[in-house]
Amino acid sequence: MKSKIHLLLPWAILMVLTITFSGQVSAKALMLKPFKSLSDQSKECVACHKQEDPSIYAQWGRSKHFGANVGCYECHQANNDDPDAIHHEGYTISVIVSPKDCSACHNEEVAEFSASHHANAGRIIGSLDNMLAEVVEGAMTMNGQSPAAVNGCWQCHGSEVKVMANGDLDPTTWPNTGIGRLNPDGSVGACTACHQRHEFSMIQARRPEACGKCHLGPDHPQKEVYDESKHGINFYANVDRMNMESAKWIVGEDYDAAPTCATCHMSATRELPVTHDVGNRISWTLRPAVSEKIDATAIKQGQTVKTWQERRRDMSAVCDACHTSSMIDSFYTQFDSLVELYNTKFAIPGKRMMATLQEQGLMTDVAFDEKIEWTWFYLWHHEGRRARHGAAMMAPDYTQWHGLYEVAERFYMELIPEYNEYVEKAEKEGKHEAAEAARKVLAEILESPEHLWFTGNEPKEVTEARQKAQAEFKKRYANED
Amino acid sequence: MKSKIHLLLPWAILMVLTITFSGQVSAKALMLKPFKSLSDQSKECVACHKQEDPSIYAQWGRSKHFGANVGCYECHQANNDDPDAIHHEGYTISVIVSPKDCSACHNEEVAEFSASHHANAGRIIGSLDNMLAEVVEGAMTMNGQSPAAVNGCWQCHGSEVKVMANGDLDPTTWPNTGIGRLNPDGSVGACTACHQRHEFSMIQARRPEACGKCHLGPDHPQKEVYDESKHGINFYANVDRMNMESAKWIVGEDYDAAPTCATCHMSATRELPVTHDVGNRISWTLRPAVSEKIDATAIKQGQTVKTWQERRRDMSAVCDACHTSSMIDSFYTQFDSLVELYNTKFAIPGKRMMATLQEQGLMTDVAFDEKIEWTWFYLWHHEGRRARHGAAMMAPDYTQWHGLYEVAERFYMELIPEYNEYVEKAEKEGKHEAAEAARKVLAEILESPEHLWFTGNEPKEVTEARQKAQAEFKKRYANED
Amino acid sequence: MKSKIHLLLPWAILMVLTITFSGQVSAKALMLKPFKSLSDQSKECVACHKQEDPSIYAQWGRSKHFGANVGCYECHQANNDDPDAIHHEGYTISVIVSPKDCSACHNEEVAEFSASHHANAGRIIGSLDNMLAEVVEGAMTMNGQSPAAVNGCWQCHGSEVKVMANGDLDPTTWPNTGIGRLNPDGSVGACTACHQRHEFSMIQARRPEACGKCHLGPDHPQKEVYDESKHGINFYANVDRMNMESAKWIVGEDYDAAPTCATCHMSATRELPVTHDVGNRISWTLRPAVSEKIDATAIKQGQTVKTWQERRRDMSAVCDACHTSSMIDSFYTQFDSLVELYNTKFAIPGKRMMATLQEQGLMTDVAFDEKIEWTWFYLWHHEGRRARHGAAMMAPDYTQWHGLYEVAERFYMELIPEYNEYVEKAEKEGKHEAAEAARKVLAEILESPEHLWFTGNEPKEVTEARQKAQAEFKKRYANED
Repeated sequence: MKSKIHLLLPWAILMVLTITFSGQVSAKALMLKPFKSLSDQSKECVACHKQEDPSIYAQWGRSKHFGANVGCYECHQANNDDPDAIHHEGYTISVIVSPKDCSACHNEEVAEFSASHHANAGRIIGSLDNMLAEVVEGAMTMNGQSPAAVNGCWQCHGSEVKVMANGDLDPTTWPNTGIGRLNPDGSVGACTACHQRHEFSMIQARRPEACGKCHLGPDHPQKEVYDESKHGINFYANVDRMNMESAKWIVGEDYDAAPTCATCHMSATRELPVTHDVGNRISWTLRPAVSEKIDATAIKQGQTVKTWQERRRDMSAVCDACHTSSMIDSFYTQFDSLVELYNTKFAIPGKRMMATLQEQGLMTDVAFDEKIEWTWFYLWHHEGRRARHGAAMMAPDYTQWHGLYEVAERFYMELIPEYNEYVEKAEKEGKHEAAEAARKVLAEILESPEHLWFTGNEPKEVTEARQKAQAEFKKRYANED
Repeated sequence: MKSKIHLLLPWAILMVLTITFSGQVSAKALMLKPFKSLSDQSKECVACHKQEDPSIYAQWGRSKHFGANVGCYECHQANNDDPDAIHHEGYTISVIVSPKDCSACHNEEVAEFSASHHANAGRIIGSLDNMLAEVVEGAMTMNGQSPAAVNGCWQCHGSEVKVMANGDLDPTTWPNTGIGRLNPDGSVGACTACHQRHEFSMIQARRPEACGKCHLGPDHPQKEVYDESKHGINFYANVDRMNMESAKWIVGEDYDAAPTCATCHMSATRELPVTHDVGNRISWTLRPAVSEKIDATAIKQGQTVKTWQERRRDMSAVCDACHTSSMIDSFYTQFDSLVELYNTKFAIPGKRMMATLQEQGLMTDVAFDEKIEWTWFYLWHHEGRRARHGAAMMAPDYTQWHGLYEVAERFYMELIPEYNEYVEKAEKEGKHEAAEAARKVLAEILESPEHLWFTGNEPKEVTEARQKAQAEFKKRYANED
Repeated sequence: MKSKIHLLLPWAILMVLTITFSGQVSAKALMLKPFKSLSDQSKECVACHKQEDPSIYAQWGRSKHFGANVGCYECHQANNDDPDAIHHEGYTISVIVSPKDCSACHNEEVAEFSASHHANAGRIIGSLDNMLAEVVEGAMTMNGQSPAAVNGCWQCHGSEVKVMANGDLDPTTWPNTGIGRLNPDGSVGACTACHQRHEFSMIQARRPEACGKCHLGPDHPQKEVYDESKHGINFYANVDRMNMESAKWIVGEDYDAAPTCATCHMSATRELPVTHDVGNRISWTLRPAVSEKIDATAIKQGQTVKTWQERRRDMSAVCDACHTSSMIDSFYTQFDSLVELYNTKFAIPGKRMMATLQEQGLMTDVAFDEKIEWTWFYLWHHEGRRARHGAAMMAPDYTQWHGLYEVAERFYMELIPEYNEYVEKAEKEGKHEAAEAARKVLAEILESPEHLWFTGNEPKEVTEARQKAQAEFKKRYANED
C-alpha cells in the first residue's frame, strides 16, 4: 500500500504540528494539510455509493475527513501487488483500511498505538485462551478454524485476515475489528475498533461505550466498574456538559464534570499530551493471576521501559485536575493494599497449589479437563480481576460482592476441597510421596495468619482482639442507636 | 367493544394510505382521519382527570392522539355487554384498552402483531416454565394462582385477565402489560407492552430499552448483547442524531448513525415497509435447546410460511443500508458457524443424554427435582442462548465468556459427571441393561472428534498439527514481540 | 466546627421558609439568605485554587453555592480544636465537610437524613459483613484494618475517619464517601455520597445512577431492577423532558414522563414534601433473610415509629400522580403475595434449618467456614433480595430468572442436600439425637403443601387439577394456535 503515501505526497505538505497545551510545548503528529478539493477518484466513488450506501455517505459527510476533502479513494486505494487489492470499477482498492493506511496522515497516533499492549492483542493465538476456543469450546469446523474463536476471541483480539484465491477476504477471518488484527498488508491493529467508520467521531471514541466493546463482562468488567464509580455517575448525569467535540479536550480546561475511560488513560491534561498507548499511565497490571507492577516483566527481560512510578506520576497528573494530592496519594494507598491482599492471600497460594499438583504428576497434561482447572481460572481470571478492577476505579460493589467475596468462596469452598481430593486420590493410588508433598504445601499455606480462621486455629488473642474492637465500636456508637 | 368502531365510523372517513418509501409503493394501514374536535365525552373525562391524574393528562397532551382529537373516551369506551365494562360517571368504559380497541384505527399494525410470535407469548401456560412458576418456585396461594407467575412470567408473557364479580379486574391478573396478554374481550396482546401509555411515543418504542422490558437477563440478554455491540455503542453516542421522532424513520434516509432493535427487526428501509411481526426478518430460532431455521417447525407441520431464506434476504436488506453485501454474507457465514457448532457439539448430544436417562427409566417423572435437569436447563436456556445471541449481534463477550465458555464448563464438568452418576447408580441397583444403554450413548458422543480431547484420546496428529500451527504463528509474529 | 455556624450567623438572617406545595402548607427547612458577596477568605482560596484545581473551580462556578456567594471557606473553615483541623495558608480549615457543616444552612435535610436508615450504614462494623471483610476475605494488613473493608464495605457504608498525628486524614479511612461515614467531628454521614462535589447538582442527585453508587450488584440490584422496569425505560427515553433542574420538581406538575428513584422515595408530590429519610415511604424491609413490615422491629422494641400503613399510604400518593388507585392497590396485592411466598416457602424454612444445625451442635462456631453457610447466604442475601426487589419495582426478569428461579435451585439442589449431609455425618458420628432432631425439622418442612412435589408426594388430586387446568387452558386457546 505504499502507493497511497506516494499518491498523497505531491498533494500535501507535511508539517510538524507544534501543539501547545497550557504552555507546555511538545512535538506532535506529522499531519497532512487538507486537500483543496475532493479528488476525481473519490468523486467517482461517491457518485454510486451515495445511492448504494447512503448511511456511509452520510456518516462521511459529517466527518472531519469530508471537511478536509479526504474521500473514499484517499483511504481505500491500493497497489496492484497488495495482497488484498481488488479491482473495482476501474480502480485498484482494498476493503480493509489498515493502521498502515491511516498512518499516512495519522502517523504519530499509529506509532503510539503500535507500541502499546493493544497492538499485541492479536498475538495471543497459541495461548491458553486459544486452547479454550479451539479445543474445549470449539472445533476446527470452519475452514480449519473454530467458530468459537471466529465469533468470540478474535472479535476483540483480532483475526489474522486471510485473502482467498479469488481476492475476497476469507469470511473465517473477516468481518473483524479486533484491536490487534493482523492485516494483509503486514500492519497490526484496527483503528476502527475504537473509531467507528465512517464518521470517526471523537464523541463516540471518547465515550465509555467505545471501550465497552471489549472491556466488559464477567472476566474484565471495566465498563461496568466505571459505570458504578462516581466518575461514571457524573458522566451520565453531565454528558451534555462534557464538550465532547472539543479538538483538544483537556480535562480541567474543556470539561470538568467527569472523566471517561479516555480521559484518564489517553487524553490530554494540562501537563500531558494525548497518547494512543493505553498502558502509558497504568502502574499495576491487573490481568494475570498474580498482579505485578507493569514494568516488572520488561525489567526481568532486561528491557528499559517507562517505569511504573513514572506511569503513576502521569496518571496522578490526570487525577490532579479534580483532586488534591493528598486524596490521590491516599487513593493509591488504598488501591495498592487491595491488590497486595489479593496477591498474598489468594493468588500466590492458589498458583502454588496448581503448580504443586502439576509438579507432583497428580493432574493430566490436558488443560481444562479437570474441575480444579476451571475453579482456579474463575478465581483469578474472573473474580480476582473484578476485585482488582473495582478497587482501581473505586466501584465498591465490584471490589466486594462481584470480587473478593466470590474469590474467598472459590478459594475456601472449591479450590481447597478439590485440591484435597487430589491428595486423597494420590494416597489411595499409592503415590505417597506426591500426596505428602502436596499435603505439605497446603498445610504451609493454611498456617499463614490470614488463613488460620479457616482451620479453626485463629489464636485466641486475635479472636479476642477482634471481639474487643467490635465491642468498643458498638459502645462508641451505641448511644446513637 | 364493537360499539367503539361503530361510534367512530360516522365521524371519520376510512382511507387507504398509500405510503411511498423511496419510490416503492405499498398498500399500508387503514387509518382514520383525525377527528375535527375533541368529543364531548372526552371533554368531560378531561375535566376531572386533568386534576386527578395530571401526568396522564400531560402525557396525552404530548401525544399524536391529542393532535388528532383522539381522547380518553375514544379508546376507553365500552359496550354494556363487554366483560370488563364498568359504569363510571354516567359512561360505560373499560380500563383495559386492548389490541382489538386499538385496531379500530391501527388495524394493520394489530394484524401484523397478531400473526407474530409475540402474540403467542401468553399461551405458554401449561409449559415447562409454568411448572417452574407454579410448583417449583411457587405455590397456588394467590387466588389459586402462584405469585411467582403473577409477578414473574406473566409480566412479560401476559396474564389471562379475569374480571371479578363486582366488575373490577382481578388483581391476580392485572396490572399486567405482558405482550401476549389474553384480554377480557377475547383479543390477544398489549400494545402498551412496547408503546407505553399515555403518550405512545415513537421515540420510546424505538429505543432499545423498550425491548429490554423482557429481552434481558441471564436467559435471553438481547438488550445487554445489543449494548455491547458496535450498533449499541453507536446508538448511545449518537442518540441526538437518530431523528427518533421521524414519522417514516427509514434507515439510510432519516438516520444512519446506528440501528436500534426496532431498526433491524421492525422498521422501514428503502425497500421494506415497517412491520409489527417481529420474527419477519429472523432466519434462525435461537430460543429452543437445539436451534433450527425459523420455518422448520411450520414445514414439519405442513404449513406454508415465509421461508428462512426470504427472511434472511429481508434482514440483509436492512444491513445493506450501512454495509456491503460481502460483509453481510460473511457475517452470516460466521454466525451460522457458531450456531451449528453449538448445536452439534453441545445441544444435540445434551438433549440425547437427557432423553436417554428418561427412556431408560433412570430419572423421576417430576421436572426439576434432580440436579441434572437444572444443569441441562442452564446449558441451553441460559448459556447456550447467550452464546447464540452474542454471535447474532456481534457481541463477542456474550459469545465467549457469558456463552460458550460456560456452556463448555457445564457440559464437561457438570452434565457428563452427573450423567455418569446415574449410570453408576443404575449399575448398583442392578439395572444393567439401562446402565449399559446409557453408557453406550455417552461413549458414542465422546467418540466424535470434537470431544476426543476430553477423554485423552485426541489423535496424536491432531495435537501435533495444533502445536505446529501455534509454533508457526508464533514464529510469524515473534520478530514483533 | 462550631465556629462555622458562629461565623455565619452575623452575616445572615435565619428564616423559616414556608413552602407551599399545591395548596398544602408545611413548615420546611431553616435556610440562610444568600451572602451579599463572596467572603474575603473564599476570594483568597479561589485565587490559588482556580489554577491548582480548575475542575473544582468550574464545578463550583456552576453550583447554586456560587450564585449565593457560598465559597470554599464557608464550608471548609474549621475551629482550632476540631480533630481534623489543619492550617493552610494562614487559615484553619478541614478537608472533610461533614453533614454537621452542611447543616448550618441545610438543617432540615440533615435532620431528616439523620433519622433515616442511611445514617446507620456506618455502624454495621462488628456485624456479619465485617467478619467477611476482616477475616474471610481479608486480613488486618493495612494499619490494622482489612483492605477488603477499606476498598469494599466502607466505600458504601462509610468508614470511621481517623486523623493521624500529623493532622492528615488516615488513608486507611479516607478517601471515603460512604453514606454512613463516621466523621471526626462526631457527625454521621456524607452528603457527597449522593450530592457529588463541587457542583452539588440536583440533576445528578435525582438520576438513578446516583443511587447506583451502592444500590446495585448481585446482592441488592435496585439500579438494574429500575432500569428494567417501565419506569426506567421511560426515564431514559424521556430524560430531556424530565425538567431535572426544577427547584421543586413535583411529579405530575414539573414532570410526568417517568419517576426516578428519588421521585418515589424522596421527592415532593402534590401532597407530600421532599424528604431525606429514604425509608419514609417503604412498607416492607426487603433486606433481611425474612422480610417483615418496616415498623416491625421498632414495634417489638416498644418504639413508636411511622407505621407501615402510613408509609404505604404515602408511597401510594406518589403512584397516584400517574396511576389509578385500583392499579396501585392491585400492584401492592401482587407485590405482597411475592414477598409472602418467598418468606413462607423458602426464607422461614431455610432460617429454621440453619438454626437447627447450630442448635444441635452440628456446625462449627466459625461463620463461613462451611459450604452450607455460603449456600444460605446466597439464597437470602443475593437471590432472595433480587426476587423481592424485582417484584417491588415490577421488573419481572429479576423476580423470576435472577430471583425465584435461583432461590428454588439453591433451596432444593444445595441447601437440602447439604443439610442432609450434616444429618448423615451426625448419624455416623453417633450423634443420634441431634441427627434425629435435624431430620425431623426437614421432614416437617417438606411435608408442607408447597414442598410435596419435591419428595414425590404431591397429592394425586393436586397433580390432576394442575393437568386439568393446563388442558383447559390449552383447549381455550388451541383454536388460535
